[in-house]
Amino acid sequence: MSFDLAGYLAERKKIIEQALDRYLPPENTYPEKIHQAVRYSIFAGGKRIRPILMLASYEIFRSDYERVLAFACALEMIHTYSLIHDDLPAMDDDDFRRGKPTSHKVFGEATAILAGDALQAEAFRLMAEAGIKEGLEPERVIWAIYELANSAGLSGLVSGQIMDLEKQGKKYTEKELEFIHRHKTASLIRASIKIGAILAGAEKKEIKALEEFGERIGLAFQIMDDILDIVGGEKLGKPIGSDQKKQKATYPALLGLNKSEERAKALVEQAFKFLEDFEEKAEPLRAIARFLIEREY
Amino acid sequence: MSFDLAGYLAERKKIIEQALDRYLPPENTYPEKIHQAVRYSIFAGGKRIRPILMLASYEIFRSDYERVLAFACALEMIHTYSLIHDDLPAMDDDDFRRGKPTSHKVFGEATAILAGDALQAEAFRLMAEAGIKEGLEPERVIWAIYELANSAGLSGLVSGQIMDLEKQGKKYTEKELEFIHRHKTASLIRASIKIGAILAGAEKKEIKALEEFGERIGLAFQIMDDILDIVGGEKLGKPIGSDQKKQKATYPALLGLNKSEERAKALVEQAFKFLEDFEEKAEPLRAIARFLIEREY
Repeated sequence: MSFDLAGYLAERKKIIEQALDRYLPPENTYPEKIHQAVRYSIFAGGKRIRPILMLASYEIFRSDYERVLAFACALEMIHTYSLIHDDLPAMDDDDFRRGKPTSHKVFGEATAILAGDALQAEAFRLMAEAGIKEGLEPERVIWAIYELANSAGLSGLVSGQIMDLEKQGKKYTEKELEFIHRHKTASLIRASIKIGAILAGAEKKEIKALEEFGERIGLAFQIMDDILDIVGGEKLGKPIGSDQKKQKATYPALLGLNKSEERAKALVEQAFKFLEDFEEKAEPLRAIARFLIEREY
Repeated sequence: MSFDLAGYLAERKKIIEQALDRYLPPENTYPEKIHQAVRYSIFAGGKRIRPILMLASYEIFRSDYERVLAFACALEMIHTYSLIHDDLPAMDDDDFRRGKPTSHKVFGEATAILAGDALQAEAFRLMAEAGIKEGLEPERVIWAIYELANSAGLSGLVSGQIMDLEKQGKKYTEKELEFIHRHKTASLIRASIKIGAILAGAEKKEIKALEEFGERIGLAFQIMDDILDIVGGEKLGKPIGSDQKKQKATYPALLGLNKSEERAKALVEQAFKFLEDFEEKAEPLRAIARFLIEREY
């Protein structure tokens, strides 16, 4: 089946960025500084993979994706907040992200911390607001909020990030490395795909299958990220080798480049099995998954 | 009417702290460091005023407060997260809070940032989870989540904190000072009282009256906080005069001590008018409001 992935990704990216622009208060809202900082990081680029995955999952079951765009934007807000905080001097201390100075380099540390804090709150505000306005099934809205909060908190991003910091320059086992990747990256990617299915009214069995798919491509995505940090990528926008310099726990460092790439590909193959029942309706999800392990940025 | 406020506050504090203990994962949960940091700040003391206000508001309408305890705990989690981040070196740079070393002094900056981030996410997770489990009206649960997110984000805490930082050592108008206090403090106190009424199934008019009450006592509460920072209080647990040292925007600095105290008392008097329709059912709320302007800690 032919599927124009590049066109699809570009169109979706545009739709999501337009929605983000609608949902965020204008830059000149008082106090201007925090609104500028929030918009700076949200519009600093990015593939918008999480919202794109959420919408693709939703569209297996329903076509009226406009009513869940707010949830897609909430996912991007949580992702962006986590990047702003990860880049802070007390954390990874990164000066550049996607080729642009990081938030604390532009606005100072206090504003960067607060911009991340605001984006986390705004993500939940936006989901709740859409839940009230869009006529969605309220139980499903609460479930979606639960999944996003769960993937962001102690069971997700935060625990991944703390172990990532903890293991820099230290010995680590494969099990610890997997914990980091599962929490820091796979958690939010899995939640994105799950939330799409939840909001579309999918059955429990279907949601479970998509969750399994999401977990595997989330892990594969992070392995490829680690690989790209070494081999570089045209549009990566950050210095090559920064993981090595920081002595981060990564798959290439533990298993080597070839084995890591094999691992990522095997995970995507496994992931595809969970899409079988959805037949051609899951073609966009398959195409995105393939892209995740073939991309150069 | 006689009302044993001290006994009431002590009992409620205990109930809320027991609930917080139940809702937060144990300290030995992997990764231990972040779970320790989260519990350290949550159990570092505090009056638990926000959850107490929420329950008192709920109980104007219903007596079965156990089913909304998770929401009360969520309010305390948001409050605690904001304190952890406010104390950071890049923000207010405070070493002590309630007589104990602040989170970043004990666990380091990265962990303190992440502990705050985790508490924000856990607050929303907990509300959504209780919304699913406790058989509450789903529309009301979503509304409550909306109010909390709204009071925490760009329309609340975050904008208050950024203006608070912005105005340190600078000239400020009474309007700017009021903006800071309304957003940094009144916002979450108002939300606490509003959420109690929302979850109890109160009518719009009743919710509005309680919101007006909350806004005013929230503002009075912050003015008293500023006053206590100067005159000190037995159980305050932080150095006296720290606002002055930082040249913070405060009411006593702008209007003097006497006028500030008058202002706080006038706000509480105004606030009481909005409770009239609730008659003796609002007695706990009145007693807490009186306590807020007579307290020494």
